[in-house]
Amino acid sequence: MSDDERAIRAVVARWMEASAAGDTKTVLGLMTDDVVFMTVSREPFGKEAFAKTSDAQRNVRMDGRSDIRELEVLPGREWAYVRNYITVTATPPDGKPTRREGWTLTILRKAADGEWRVARDANLMAAHA
Amino acid sequence: MSDDERAIRAVVARWMEASAAGDTKTVLGLMTDDVVFMTVSREPFGKEAFAKTSDAQRNVRMDGRSDIRELEVLPGREWAYVRNYITVTATPPDGKPTRREGWTLTILRKAADGEWRVARDANLMAAHA
Repeated sequence: MSDDERAIRAVVARWMEASAAGDTKTVLGLMTDDVVFMTVSREPFGKEAFAKTSDAQRNVRMDGRSDIRELEVLPGREWAYVRNYITVTATPPDGKPTRREGWTLTILRKAADGEWRVARDANLMAAHA
Repeated sequence: MSDDERAIRAVVARWMEASAAGDTKTVLGLMTDDVVFMTVSREPFGKEAFAKTSDAQRNVRMDGRSDIRELEVLPGREWAYVRNYITVTATPPDGKPTRREGWTLTILRKAADGEWRVARDANLMAAHA
């Protein structure tokens, strides 16, 4: 496994851990400033909207798993893409847990500081019975 | 506009035209052999499954529009990504037209023959009332 692949896997793992811990600041640090998230339920949104959504879900317990099915570091080693299968169980303070799962296609960029960050993300996750 | 950007826009335009014309052979030529399509309604699938689906929809009239919202040729000019907003109206022979629209995130690769082809595609399109 190349250093870049290892670093990208670490970014994905930190993202899942920080999300579960409600550590939005860490998650925001793992994306580029011009990141674009694409989901089935709303128009594409960026970093600020991501932060607001995370803030609104502060009291929801998130338990997520990620299973990287493909990881390709592109020539030049400044860009990469990842296909991931993600399962998230969300439990509001007094509510029933709901499970969502599905595929994501994520494009990552290595910044001048040498750190890989999520730049574009298409999330196909849907609610699961 | 760079030659690569022009070539990628031509691939997208040819894809839409060939789809509308039911010219599956041309569409298949615009994707890599290892292409992966990700959609909300089924597990990721490849070129062979794409061909089968197209064949099954041979008699459905497709009227599609594509609006490229972002196009980025990556350093090395061998890879690129496109964010597209697509609207498709499908009309079966004796049926009512249905409209689907939504965002796609597409990764393209320039092959040894100098042609850009779709390599990975995440399609967030949903049925529209």
